[in-house]
Amino acid sequence: MSQQLMEMLEQAFEESTKLYQDRGFQRRVGFGKKPALINVDLANAWTRPGNPFTCDKIDDEIIPGVQRLLEACRAHGFPVIHVTTCYQVTDRENPNTDMGLWHNKIPVDVVDQSNEDLWAIDSRIAPIEGEQVLIKKRASSFHGTYLAGFLRAAGVDTILVTGVTASACVRTTLCDGLAEGFRTIAVKECIGDRVPGAVAWNLFDIDAKFADVEPVDKCVDYLNTVGAAKG
Amino acid sequence: MSQQLMEMLEQAFEESTKLYQDRGFQRRVGFGKKPALINVDLANAWTRPGNPFTCDKIDDEIIPGVQRLLEACRAHGFPVIHVTTCYQVTDRENPNTDMGLWHNKIPVDVVDQSNEDLWAIDSRIAPIEGEQVLIKKRASSFHGTYLAGFLRAAGVDTILVTGVTASACVRTTLCDGLAEGFRTIAVKECIGDRVPGAVAWNLFDIDAKFADVEPVDKCVDYLNTVGAAKG
Amino acid sequence: MSQQLMEMLEQAFEESTKLYQDRGFQRRVGFGKKPALINVDLANAWTRPGNPFTCDKIDDEIIPGVQRLLEACRAHGFPVIHVTTCYQVTDRENPNTDMGLWHNKIPVDVVDQSNEDLWAIDSRIAPIEGEQVLIKKRASSFHGTYLAGFLRAAGVDTILVTGVTASACVRTTLCDGLAEGFRTIAVKECIGDRVPGAVAWNLFDIDAKFADVEPVDKCVDYLNTVGAAKG
Amino acid sequence: MSQQLMEMLEQAFEESTKLYQDRGFQRRVGFGKKPALINVDLANAWTRPGNPFTCDKIDDEIIPGVQRLLEACRAHGFPVIHVTTCYQVTDRENPNTDMGLWHNKIPVDVVDQSNEDLWAIDSRIAPIEGEQVLIKKRASSFHGTYLAGFLRAAGVDTILVTGVTASACVRTTLCDGLAEGFRTIAVKECIGDRVPGAVAWNLFDIDAKFADVEPVDKCVDYLNTVGAAKG
Repeated sequence: MSQQLMEMLEQAFEESTKLYQDRGFQRRVGFGKKPALINVDLANAWTRPGNPFTCDKIDDEIIPGVQRLLEACRAHGFPVIHVTTCYQVTDRENPNTDMGLWHNKIPVDVVDQSNEDLWAIDSRIAPIEGEQVLIKKRASSFHGTYLAGFLRAAGVDTILVTGVTASACVRTTLCDGLAEGFRTIAVKECIGDRVPGAVAWNLFDIDAKFADVEPVDKCVDYLNTVGAAKG
Repeated sequence: MSQQLMEMLEQAFEESTKLYQDRGFQRRVGFGKKPALINVDLANAWTRPGNPFTCDKIDDEIIPGVQRLLEACRAHGFPVIHVTTCYQVTDRENPNTDMGLWHNKIPVDVVDQSNEDLWAIDSRIAPIEGEQVLIKKRASSFHGTYLAGFLRAAGVDTILVTGVTASACVRTTLCDGLAEGFRTIAVKECIGDRVPGAVAWNLFDIDAKFADVEPVDKCVDYLNTVGAAKG
Repeated sequence: MSQQLMEMLEQAFEESTKLYQDRGFQRRVGFGKKPALINVDLANAWTRPGNPFTCDKIDDEIIPGVQRLLEACRAHGFPVIHVTTCYQVTDRENPNTDMGLWHNKIPVDVVDQSNEDLWAIDSRIAPIEGEQVLIKKRASSFHGTYLAGFLRAAGVDTILVTGVTASACVRTTLCDGLAEGFRTIAVKECIGDRVPGAVAWNLFDIDAKFADVEPVDKCVDYLNTVGAAKG
Repeated sequence: MSQQLMEMLEQAFEESTKLYQDRGFQRRVGFGKKPALINVDLANAWTRPGNPFTCDKIDDEIIPGVQRLLEACRAHGFPVIHVTTCYQVTDRENPNTDMGLWHNKIPVDVVDQSNEDLWAIDSRIAPIEGEQVLIKKRASSFHGTYLAGFLRAAGVDTILVTGVTASACVRTTLCDGLAEGFRTIAVKECIGDRVPGAVAWNLFDIDAKFADVEPVDKCVDYLNTVGAAKG
């Protein structure tokens, strides 16, 4: 069914694009002068098989794409933030849990802080010295974290966002990122999910209203160009 | 095409639901003890014909549904917040605008604060004495507003959300609402959008991860039941 | 008593300064490259006689100083944000008020939104075309507002803060401003309060930990210098 | 000098209190129905000798008071949150640090995350199973953290705040707590600082505008009473 679904979605996107363009949506926010890379939930519970959170297209598309972005950012000294999610209190019956109410919707109770292997960043794209691992408790990388304040202090004006999932943590991170005043770029090949169609329809909504969806090639070129310029 | 698209989406949702249920998603957050009603962007620029923001199914579904919810909330003294969006500086060339960067994605520049008719709440569901109109600048009703603080001070634990659009302001309001610690209910018939499929796929994502999507009948029953109980 | 109190406070500040300097406090955050001016609650309820919120040293120090800062910002196109405070629901018995719980500490119930003269910016330093009036509900100009997102979108890295009161809205605005990643400058002569000693001890705490307290002369010079440089 | 300073401050407070009471300040926010205890920065770098952050009156007043509060909260199942502060990147020359800009004012660079002993909660009041340690990066326990969302999800309406310092992390936590819609109680004996007068003038400002300053005896009684009532 997936091929058929994608064709049908493409038709819907085409029709919607006409309306959006007529009305002035789908504008370009554009790349700015000082980018940061934000990798969302590319930790083992999401990138390795066998977990409720395991996602698709990790090995063949997301990891290789993120590796290229990391290389470019590191070459030019642009900030990289590795975002992950875990909890201190994962007992679903305990009302005093840092899961808040989210375990009433999704199985966040599996990501216990004491089991670091689950929420550690995938070793293929692991942080190096001087890069931060930001632990969040909600979907958005900005919600209930110091991310916006950090990015402003670092003079960042543009965020390139990768990771999983398109329908939750990546989308909310991009929505919040734009709201916080950052130019938001969704790196197309480096965003995944786990159910049919979810990447497609979420990237369509995102591109219409919250961020520019751009191919990884273009993002790597941008990083190298803006990095050389500042050099 | 729309009928065909909906059938295809229903198939995709069915398939995804299997995976989600196997893995522990699509749980119920449930109704709490003290609800508030949040109507998002049900202002003339969104509810009346002829504006870039005009949405579908306003007259036949959303307005009548919201009228029923308003009646129940008012009968029992539950807070109602009327959310709208407008800007003081709508010159797209002015970098010092309260639109932030959003006018670089969507035509928010049309909603000028000086043109109150555009952002006034639709007269069919207008605020009455004691109800607040909350002006926001971004998609989420929580982002950059005092909404979360107000709701907590009022002892609210549950938010019923209506309005437009499913793909932007309603969805981000629900995501943030759950993150802020409120039980989140998306009132199914009272949420609209303007392009094919957008209501369907956004409600599907929302119900899987961020809020319970519930019919307006059930929501009205809940308001009357919990209202009678508090007596 | 005031002269004696001030002398005693100066002694205490001197003693504390020794400890602070030994331990590495009282560092300088410094001026950045793109400033904005934030005037906090310089509205009639605070600047004109006869209101519970009326403050001292308005006419002889604060207004003239702010006029100089405004002139310099306007000459160079730096953003100016006029912050004020008012409420839609000012009935203290109504639990559903946008005052939240603050009316349980201070008389915010006097500043009703329908009485615009109370919360309008003092005419001597009123906004001009293209400048925003930001209505807040809490002490901090950042809390529950879009201020941080706006400043970031405008590329601002430094905020010059004036207004009242030192012990509440100005201090919380500076604390939040630094936390949000902005270089924070408290303009010494342009910050007021209404009880003995409050300006002195709050500026002392602020300078030790949250912002550089700088004379208005130096701030005007900075605005002109950085403005000429961007020229 | 300290005795003399305190007498002079008491005189100033008395005079100010007349003005405040005439004008409607210094109201009582009161205790609510569901409290939580928030201990701010009672970690070794602040509670043990020899650190730039070391504070006064830890051993004889703050620790014993907090022990009594902990006992009462634990007896009745009220949430306890242990707040501390540390950083992943403490190189002051690195612009990409989670210290943001704060190291430009105070010596936060000493609290390196890799040196856990520094930021671990003081063993005399250490967390037990089921209690959270919340790591913050800024002064306020709410700023850039999930605290408000957690408290709302747990149904908390009142926060009892202890810790250090009066002039920074405790004060900003109380200001934000009220802004977020919680009844704010500053536990008088359990709040400290490190320079003369700072506790006195900060508690005076706080009590006038942001929280009720209450003795630990009264707070313990309250916890036991409200705990028995829910029991």
